Amino acid sequence: MGDTIKQLAVLGSTGSIGQQTLDVVRALPHQFRIIGLAAGKNTTLLAKQISEFKPRFVCYQNKKVSAHLLDGGCELLSPEDIACHPQIDMVVMATSGKSGLSPTLAAVKAGKTVALANKESLVMAGEIITKEAKRNNAQILPIDSEHSAIWQCLRGETQEAVKLILTASGGPFRGCSSAQLERVTAEQALRHPSWQMGKKVTIDSATLMNKGLEVIEARWLFNVPFDNIKVAIHPQSIIHSMVEFIDGSVKAQLSYPDMRLPIQYALSYPERLPNPQLPQLNWSTINNLTFEPPDLDTFPCLKLAVEAGKKGGTYPAVLCAADEVAVDLFLSQGIKFTDIAHLVEQALKQHQSIAHPTLEEIMAADGWAKQKILELTGANVWKY
Amino acid sequence: MGDTIKQLAVLGSTGSIGQQTLDVVRALPHQFRIIGLAAGKNTTLLAKQISEFKPRFVCYQNKKVSAHLLDGGCELLSPEDIACHPQIDMVVMATSGKSGLSPTLAAVKAGKTVALANKESLVMAGEIITKEAKRNNAQILPIDSEHSAIWQCLRGETQEAVKLILTASGGPFRGCSSAQLERVTAEQALRHPSWQMGKKVTIDSATLMNKGLEVIEARWLFNVPFDNIKVAIHPQSIIHSMVEFIDGSVKAQLSYPDMRLPIQYALSYPERLPNPQLPQLNWSTINNLTFEPPDLDTFPCLKLAVEAGKKGGTYPAVLCAADEVAVDLFLSQGIKFTDIAHLVEQALKQHQSIAHPTLEEIMAADGWAKQKILELTGANVWKY
Repeated sequence: MGDTIKQLAVLGSTGSIGQQTLDVVRALPHQFRIIGLAAGKNTTLLAKQISEFKPRFVCYQNKKVSAHLLDGGCELLSPEDIACHPQIDMVVMATSGKSGLSPTLAAVKAGKTVALANKESLVMAGEIITKEAKRNNAQILPIDSEHSAIWQCLRGETQEAVKLILTASGGPFRGCSSAQLERVTAEQALRHPSWQMGKKVTIDSATLMNKGLEVIEARWLFNVPFDNIKVAIHPQSIIHSMVEFIDGSVKAQLSYPDMRLPIQYALSYPERLPNPQLPQLNWSTINNLTFEPPDLDTFPCLKLAVEAGKKGGTYPAVLCAADEVAVDLFLSQGIKFTDIAHLVEQALKQHQSIAHPTLEEIMAADGWAKQKILELTGANVWKY
Repeated sequence: MGDTIKQLAVLGSTGSIGQQTLDVVRALPHQFRIIGLAAGKNTTLLAKQISEFKPRFVCYQNKKVSAHLLDGGCELLSPEDIACHPQIDMVVMATSGKSGLSPTLAAVKAGKTVALANKESLVMAGEIITKEAKRNNAQILPIDSEHSAIWQCLRGETQEAVKLILTASGGPFRGCSSAQLERVTAEQALRHPSWQMGKKVTIDSATLMNKGLEVIEARWLFNVPFDNIKVAIHPQSIIHSMVEFIDGSVKAQLSYPDMRLPIQYALSYPERLPNPQLPQLNWSTINNLTFEPPDLDTFPCLKLAVEAGKKGGTYPAVLCAADEVAVDLFLSQGIKFTDIAHLVEQALKQHQSIAHPTLEEIMAADGWAKQKILELTGANVWKY
């Protein structure tokens, strides 16, 4: 007990990654203690989490909820204040969307170890965040299964990777034609064949935008040029990604698709811990691992993302913001599935990028892109 | 130049692994220098190698060859003397058969780094050799593709593997019935589907004895109990082996089947070196990696080997020796392919094992087993 227990803050504790992080903590109560929890509007679940884990610091966005959440004696702080609090050893950034950006930056500026699931932090502001992490000796540990796989493969290697092969399940529409994609429903798009995830990332997996965002993240996490980051469609989701080294040797990391493994790996790093709840690969049932190239014509979001990443500046912020609104309109207002890519492409085409942007310029590009998608669709949505 | 060049001795330089080791040295002349060469009877090739690499020390077994081999001024030494010579940084043990045992032991006793391809060293005398290596701070670096894969996957890991999954191509007779195997010819057995290797190891691959020997080696190299070393048939020979860790995460090493990669990895360790001659995996041509359990009834050699390994004592020496003679009789005198397993099984059944044997007791068991196979077959072969 005492010093050997890692003190964690989980920002975004009621989302998919947040809940699975708490599952890992439940399974390993002698290793981790929850000191901070932050969530958005799901205060019912947050209240349960507070009652179970008894954190010292809490943050929630739903103003309508009374202060009874704090009855246990925990202190109300902003996500940024939780992220850089001296009592926190590690910040799990499990929020989705750009709201993760500011606490991630606060955490790295405070030299914290950040277990990062929030994609937008590195996609929108990779240059700023990695520079600040380096300056303040903060560690960024990836939680995404693909980046965790790469990180595990790089473990102990003294030379950088020459190539990364990110695997993608291909989503529910692998093999479909563009004409078929025109007609798919939100319900169909939310049926992911191998991963249980939040809605936004599930749609992004169906369009392959998710893989594009991961390519940009990989570029920042592992310092590999875009041209050396490849994507392979691997429907079984057993190999989570691969690394090629200078001698041509390739290493891969494998497991059943279960986010608790990469979460636990980041939490317990550099140690690996036994967790009976994590499934072990059964080679008598795995007959076949297949690979195919991604169909960039039918799934243009992957190409759009990689191009935005290569161009840099505020393009990746526009990519994220335009995709966020387009996915929301697909889910809530019935724009076509294929419109997601068209809208993102239009926003990127019309955007005037700023090189090496500040955080304010990134946020302005985000706002511009969201407004642009509303203009392009004639949607009347005030929440952005 | 100078101190940064590793000074190598290659014992068994005219065999398959020896020749490929020299290929790697040719490709990386600024990294490695050949100081010692030892070979058996192929003095024609050895003479060429001496002329090209100009080693300081040479050993050859063919007494009929005149001393012209030494015209270049190199000194004639025994394999043991080469293996522990102060000028040698690393000994590549590329011989096949029990003749590798004594020089391997000499090298580890001298605290040398041994790049080990010779299977018999660890199979027959794993306990003695690993104990001496530990006592003398000698490193044993595996060259076999499977063990190299495991070693690469364990790189940087601070905890031991909980499970090893050795892959096997399955050889040319994968899927055959026992009845079909009764009739296969030496020519068919020598046609390995994915690896180019020496004759003995090619036949051992066809019977799966080779995989059994590798299981025993893996037990000594990585200190994993036999029950946690599994074998998966993987006909494409792209994944060379896998390691499962305590958290359920699995790492694998992949490449085209080309022995120069594991050889180079051992030679250059801990560095990885670029070598344009080594092929890079092309994921647009790799569609499918398949796995199936080994058929232990049709290929009983794998089971026999693992059982001999588990029992320990002088059983693994008997396994090796009986297999060596049986394979030779299959190749030269037309005993049936299926007789190899039957003969090895008979020898193991009739053997009286000695626990924790000395090197002399191991050698005596080797002699006993060879004599036993000759008795069992009525063969009249004096060379053993």
